[in-house]
Amino acid sequence: MKRTERVGAMLQILRENPNKTFSLGYFCDMFDCAKSSLSEDVSAAKRALEISGYGRIETSAGAKGGLKYIPSISQKTAESLLHELECKLEEKDRILANGFLYTSDIMFNPVIAKGVGQIFAKKFENCRADYVVTVETKGLPAALMTAEMLNLPLVVLRRESKISEGSTVSINYFAGSAERIQKMSLAKRAVKPGTRALIVDDFMRAGGSIRGITDMMREFDVEVVGVGVVIAAKVPEKKKVSDYFPLMYLGTVDADEQIIEIEQNVEGLKEIFE
Amino acid sequence: MKRTERVGAMLQILRENPNKTFSLGYFCDMFDCAKSSLSEDVSAAKRALEISGYGRIETSAGAKGGLKYIPSISQKTAESLLHELECKLEEKDRILANGFLYTSDIMFNPVIAKGVGQIFAKKFENCRADYVVTVETKGLPAALMTAEMLNLPLVVLRRESKISEGSTVSINYFAGSAERIQKMSLAKRAVKPGTRALIVDDFMRAGGSIRGITDMMREFDVEVVGVGVVIAAKVPEKKKVSDYFPLMYLGTVDADEQIIEIEQNVEGLKEIFE
Repeated sequence: MKRTERVGAMLQILRENPNKTFSLGYFCDMFDCAKSSLSEDVSAAKRALEISGYGRIETSAGAKGGLKYIPSISQKTAESLLHELECKLEEKDRILANGFLYTSDIMFNPVIAKGVGQIFAKKFENCRADYVVTVETKGLPAALMTAEMLNLPLVVLRRESKISEGSTVSINYFAGSAERIQKMSLAKRAVKPGTRALIVDDFMRAGGSIRGITDMMREFDVEVVGVGVVIAAKVPEKKKVSDYFPLMYLGTVDADEQIIEIEQNVEGLKEIFE
Repeated sequence: MKRTERVGAMLQILRENPNKTFSLGYFCDMFDCAKSSLSEDVSAAKRALEISGYGRIETSAGAKGGLKYIPSISQKTAESLLHELECKLEEKDRILANGFLYTSDIMFNPVIAKGVGQIFAKKFENCRADYVVTVETKGLPAALMTAEMLNLPLVVLRRESKISEGSTVSINYFAGSAERIQKMSLAKRAVKPGTRALIVDDFMRAGGSIRGITDMMREFDVEVVGVGVVIAAKVPEKKKVSDYFPLMYLGTVDADEQIIEIEQNVEGLKEIFE
């Protein structure tokens, strides 16, 4: 087998399993070659990843050591994703009556969800979360992709407790601008006490849902170590959670004047890549 | 830049964008090299993919031609995924009262969802779907991953019509063994008439939900060209839809006797790889 093919195959396998450690021996067996010749392959694979801008390979020594692929996204790719999000969100025909914005096609778009997941995975790569947590439904794609990149399980809070969830814990919380009472519920077996959760959601106005998820995590003795949202509303300025990372800010949406104020979180994105 | 690095980078970019065509010129510009030297790179990339078992590269000629990555999964990997699913589903502590099985952790597991998506993408690669369609919530991860692999948008039917969905079409349907009336709703703007949909869901008992989605698609003049479900119940034998592809069959679940009858769709999987 040629070096080029070995390196290509190694990259495919590592990429298919983000944040999973493979021993050098695994690839020696697969390619039927010595560890010494593999180390040059690893260097070549690292350079190839640098060029493509989609993450990096980390090597670790010792008995449990090996190679793992840390997925990422280049600053350029992240910037063009936010630009694409901005353009899409500014489309006038998204304006619904009463100032809502139609975003389902965006939030359910696999390519966008993947890009968002890559940015969140980079932002939160050191937060040592044990789960990614979201509440159904529109934040689920971004949360799933973030979980995939970080090699973590995804936990989804439900609006109603389902018979197929077994025994559940439910809470009520205030949500939305009208401060309606909403409910969310989680299977008792879904998380373990003493663990850490990264929350991902599609949209935050006052932060009621995120606060709800945080309260729920507290019920389960789970620490929230990060919050990523795709879009945060500018108003109200005071949110029910203090620490969150949005990709976009939404200002006024005016159906009569056909105005959508949308802004990228330029500063926040820059910080990730510093 | 060495060939090894070019091939590695090319593979990363193609893989990041399943089923998207890139012109040869795109890579010539990126790598600053001639088309003639790129054709050997393409051959090496193809061989590397063959070795790793994660899909293939298709080349097409002409003005709109170029390279695209068709994601896939080797028979061996698909078989080990089904084996893993079987082992997980057989865990006795999944049995809930009244014969339900707890599967949320499985359906929300990103690695499993991706594997399921890869199998469905291979099964339905020639069905020329314009969308992948599911109904919230537990089938969403598998549907999203299938959509990503096929480079299609995902459309998610909601249980309740939401204010953020704009004007919607709703239908009522019979679901579950108790034949309760359930509702599903879809934004009017979510799909276009005259298009084709691939349905993906997590579980099918009598097929009420899938039938509901099919009826909804008919309301929108959308043709259903395939149905993939992760688990299909053996009983009732007569389903409300005739043509569907399950990965697993679920037989009796008995809480008293601690029995879970689960079977892989061995024949169906074999056919995909013939």
